[in-house]
Amino acid sequence: MGNDGAYVALGLKGWKGQIERADKLFGSLSAEEVQREIAPGRNRLLYLWGHLTAIHDAMLPLLGLGERLHPEFDAAFVSNPDKSQAATPSHEQVRQAWNAVNGELRKGMEGVSSSGWLQRHMAVSEEDFAKDPSRNRFAVLLSRTNHLSYHLGQAVLGHK
Amino acid sequence: MGNDGAYVALGLKGWKGQIERADKLFGSLSAEEVQREIAPGRNRLLYLWGHLTAIHDAMLPLLGLGERLHPEFDAAFVSNPDKSQAATPSHEQVRQAWNAVNGELRKGMEGVSSSGWLQRHMAVSEEDFAKDPSRNRFAVLLSRTNHLSYHLGQAVLGHK
Repeated sequence: MGNDGAYVALGLKGWKGQIERADKLFGSLSAEEVQREIAPGRNRLLYLWGHLTAIHDAMLPLLGLGERLHPEFDAAFVSNPDKSQAATPSHEQVRQAWNAVNGELRKGMEGVSSSGWLQRHMAVSEEDFAKDPSRNRFAVLLSRTNHLSYHLGQAVLGHK
Repeated sequence: MGNDGAYVALGLKGWKGQIERADKLFGSLSAEEVQREIAPGRNRLLYLWGHLTAIHDAMLPLLGLGERLHPEFDAAFVSNPDKSQAATPSHEQVRQAWNAVNGELRKGMEGVSSSGWLQRHMAVSEEDFAKDPSRNRFAVLLSRTNHLSYHLGQAVLGHK
């Protein structure tokens, strides 16, 4: 075991801190505000929120924590650009999905043992993992925290 | 020791990945492009680049790796908003400082032992660190990586 718990706690603290920041920023938006673009001609806040929800949803199977809750978010918020789809999830649907997905992740993450974070993530085979053991769950945690920060930096521009 | 090295390697990989991304994005800008605002009325790319340089420069003493190289960047890029100062470092000065600071950090980080990352950072006293051992160098590494991602998300908007 050694110091595993200390590193994992720091990784989780970073994740939770960014999630709280996103909760506050997106959670405070009105139905009108969420339609704002972060800059003229750029993504709307709702798109960023839905995008983050979809990417976090995909972390559930990636970390071996369960099935996705909202695979249908990918078409609206990942594989297609903003304003290209006729029907996309509503403000209320994104809010509910965001809360459900991050709640599920929180529960699941709490159940991962310290050394479990160094086990392979589910998008890498056992064979490939043997060649490159850095393709583990902790790497996913850090990279998704950075991804969240990246889009928070953008979202704050649309949030006057 | 145990798994310390594995966690540290993942933290450093994340840092280096974001630095490379920033190198490419900012390094490719012409003297004109660096004056662009990321959105109308918002920070210029040069301000973001200088801001990141100043915050990274401050990591040198914070991580116990040495003195700051460019403390004068704070007035231009941290404690005052963009376009508020009569004289700010030029494009070329920011480029040189960015490269010097991150080069110094890279060298310094390579010299920190795995368990050394769990030692206190220099802005916390030994007494306070005893109460909260999470205030360590690894926490600084992760939070500054997130900070870099946050502003990269913004900078990409100004970089057509």
